[in-house]
Amino acid sequence: MTDTDLIQQIREIVGDRGVLIGDDVSSRSCDPFRQVPAESPVIVRPASTEEVSQVVTLCHRLGQRIVTHGGRTGVSGGAYASSTEIILSLERMHRIEEICPTTQLAVVEAGVTIEALQNAVAEHGLFYPIDLNSKGTATVGGTIATNAGGNRVLRWGMTRQNVLGVEAVLADGTVVSAMNRLIKNNTGYDLKHVFIGTEGTLGIITRAVVRLVPAPASQTVAFVSVADNDALLALLLRARRLSILSAFEVMWPDYYDLVASSGTDRRPVEPGQGAYILIESMGYNPELDQQVFEEFLTEAFEAGVIVDAVTASSNKQIADLWRVREGAEIIVKEMSPFVSFDISVDVRHVDAFVDRAKQFLTANFETVRTATFGHLGDNNIHIAVHVGPDTTAQEAEVERCVFRALREFEGAITAEHGIGQTKREFLPEHKQPGEMVMMRRLRSALDPDKLLNHDVLF
Amino acid sequence: MTDTDLIQQIREIVGDRGVLIGDDVSSRSCDPFRQVPAESPVIVRPASTEEVSQVVTLCHRLGQRIVTHGGRTGVSGGAYASSTEIILSLERMHRIEEICPTTQLAVVEAGVTIEALQNAVAEHGLFYPIDLNSKGTATVGGTIATNAGGNRVLRWGMTRQNVLGVEAVLADGTVVSAMNRLIKNNTGYDLKHVFIGTEGTLGIITRAVVRLVPAPASQTVAFVSVADNDALLALLLRARRLSILSAFEVMWPDYYDLVASSGTDRRPVEPGQGAYILIESMGYNPELDQQVFEEFLTEAFEAGVIVDAVTASSNKQIADLWRVREGAEIIVKEMSPFVSFDISVDVRHVDAFVDRAKQFLTANFETVRTATFGHLGDNNIHIAVHVGPDTTAQEAEVERCVFRALREFEGAITAEHGIGQTKREFLPEHKQPGEMVMMRRLRSALDPDKLLNHDVLF
Repeated sequence: MTDTDLIQQIREIVGDRGVLIGDDVSSRSCDPFRQVPAESPVIVRPASTEEVSQVVTLCHRLGQRIVTHGGRTGVSGGAYASSTEIILSLERMHRIEEICPTTQLAVVEAGVTIEALQNAVAEHGLFYPIDLNSKGTATVGGTIATNAGGNRVLRWGMTRQNVLGVEAVLADGTVVSAMNRLIKNNTGYDLKHVFIGTEGTLGIITRAVVRLVPAPASQTVAFVSVADNDALLALLLRARRLSILSAFEVMWPDYYDLVASSGTDRRPVEPGQGAYILIESMGYNPELDQQVFEEFLTEAFEAGVIVDAVTASSNKQIADLWRVREGAEIIVKEMSPFVSFDISVDVRHVDAFVDRAKQFLTANFETVRTATFGHLGDNNIHIAVHVGPDTTAQEAEVERCVFRALREFEGAITAEHGIGQTKREFLPEHKQPGEMVMMRRLRSALDPDKLLNHDVLF
Repeated sequence: MTDTDLIQQIREIVGDRGVLIGDDVSSRSCDPFRQVPAESPVIVRPASTEEVSQVVTLCHRLGQRIVTHGGRTGVSGGAYASSTEIILSLERMHRIEEICPTTQLAVVEAGVTIEALQNAVAEHGLFYPIDLNSKGTATVGGTIATNAGGNRVLRWGMTRQNVLGVEAVLADGTVVSAMNRLIKNNTGYDLKHVFIGTEGTLGIITRAVVRLVPAPASQTVAFVSVADNDALLALLLRARRLSILSAFEVMWPDYYDLVASSGTDRRPVEPGQGAYILIESMGYNPELDQQVFEEFLTEAFEAGVIVDAVTASSNKQIADLWRVREGAEIIVKEMSPFVSFDISVDVRHVDAFVDRAKQFLTANFETVRTATFGHLGDNNIHIAVHVGPDTTAQEAEVERCVFRALREFEGAITAEHGIGQTKREFLPEHKQPGEMVMMRRLRSALDPDKLLNHDVLF
């Protein structure tokens, strides 16, 4: 079938508004950080699960491959689409169908952005705790497909922990409506977990039920320094005993020195220490929450764990402290070009791992600069690596160095961002053989022709 | 092949200690509440994942069905085994391989009991929050396979939320070692979720990595009464704003009147109200936790939500209040025979659902007595139903009445206990057609001959 015929048949299902072609396709980037044009002949924009099912059924009959688009904020190339693939975008399915303040859940279509959801539930005194820089564009469907994380995972979990139910369309058009609204439900397989985090390879998520929590009434942030790695771990163990802990963000000296030197407003404590930590609490009893938090800090200080600390409770001060942690634009300004990593490693081994990675890098490159920071409470660290002006050309070799070190410490090559298309080559060596066997069997069972997100994952 | 030949081949894999036959098999009950003898020719007790894999490979070659046994505490017949099935028990795999106080995780073999795990981690100041009455016998493997819940789900989640990694053997003997130790890990499919809660139909869990939390340093319990359902929901919404909330257990008058009349030590507040609630907090700052809890109670009282309340902080008083909630033996004494339900329903509909269920029951039976209680914070309620001396014979009809009411309110026929063999007939009418299609496809992909737990689920 020619593209023209295919588009015509699709148009009959989704109508004119549901079809984009020509410049409307090629002007759209599949990557949030650089222009990676969609090469597809058409972007299909269904308005309902039923339309998604009809389009997928048609494609299944024709053996036509599909790439699913949410907000295209993924940084692993999960949205890249070739000329032999059509794009199915959930952008017209952006209805918030229901917000229930008593049961504390929302029912939404997959194309709703995280920010739209957060704003809508805030009006009911509720909070959707998935916190991402890209929340204005990232969609509920996309974040479920990639099991997105963020800054508050150690309190409320990854996206997986915040989803109650999912509706999805399988590669043959079958609609699986697993729109569970209950916290406890052991009635058969909990199918949502087969769609969460599988990067759109097992089905197209069209709707979801998400769990909400009461909007926190208190927020306190401290910015502290510790002398060395032992003190850092001691502080983390103490922080885990803070019931209202909502973030534990670590910045190592290579990161902090860079950011702190960019201006005094980004230097809350003096440099020269072993690590810097932003600790945040959120709760529902402002006065006593503050007291609990202060007691925690005082005790850590008296025990000699903390060297220096500043605390903030006003919104302005809190935002200022978070700005130190969110200094991405300073890395861009001072370290470009760089390769960026999103990895997980056992908290006990972070120090040794970073040393080892630098060792491998130094053996390969004359210049090696790094900036290391991350959500240590969840084992998740980010590293930006610069190896000179040709860093981008050397990306594969930089990755090999870092991942080789990671393998020694049984770390994960992606904590939050996913494998997508860009990390695909590394997946088999970071999974056990039996895991690869089982992943292939599951995908074959649900999509034997690999029509959905064909080049993603494996 | 004769049973004798099969047993001989199995013996060559697992040795004499790994094989039970004759009385050692038939004397073993597959049900915790009544004698349901294992009818199998043999109980195989491998000592390692490798031995499990060899036994399963042999069975796969022979088309031999296998029923997996953990602690046999499941109440849905998941462990029932016929004469054509061999039993594979994990009872010899009860090693706690590692407890890591810094990373706060434990690595265990599947046959470790929940109590053994809890005791071992307590020595390191840690806590495994899955809380079950059967914890002395229930195993880590069994509770993962059934995604067990318990009293503290609203704080720490179901078993699913407390498992980091799983090792399992597929029906053809393939070992899937997905022993993840990291909180954030989006490296490919998160395969543990395919084994968790699928009741042993997709693989045999042999080892696991479980997540631990710091052992709480404070525990406070209040026992309160409220006038009606509106007040009950208002109280639940307030309790959700208590960061240290660890249990919210509701007893309706049919339950409380029964238990309270059994002795004054089980009557913490006066009867005659709409509902009775045990509220528990656990935290890490005893003094301030107590203050937060008391402020919560005071405010609920002043707002007219609570009618009456008693509070306990000593271990003895706390145990006494929990005994009111755990009055199963009084139900057994006063209401036998009865049919017991473990269901989930939206908190907004609990009242209407119970009324509707009673309406259906009363239309069918002259005598209808109920006792209703449960973990309302998780939508999970338990109902014991007595319809006269022949209740047991009428079990199927009683179930039909309750499940029919449940369907009107989109409830779940099992919140914690699972489908097993005994609720299997009800599963299709409580799942969407697409869900059944997908469940069958997944099972076919991993166990096309249905060799594992053949009669479980569907």
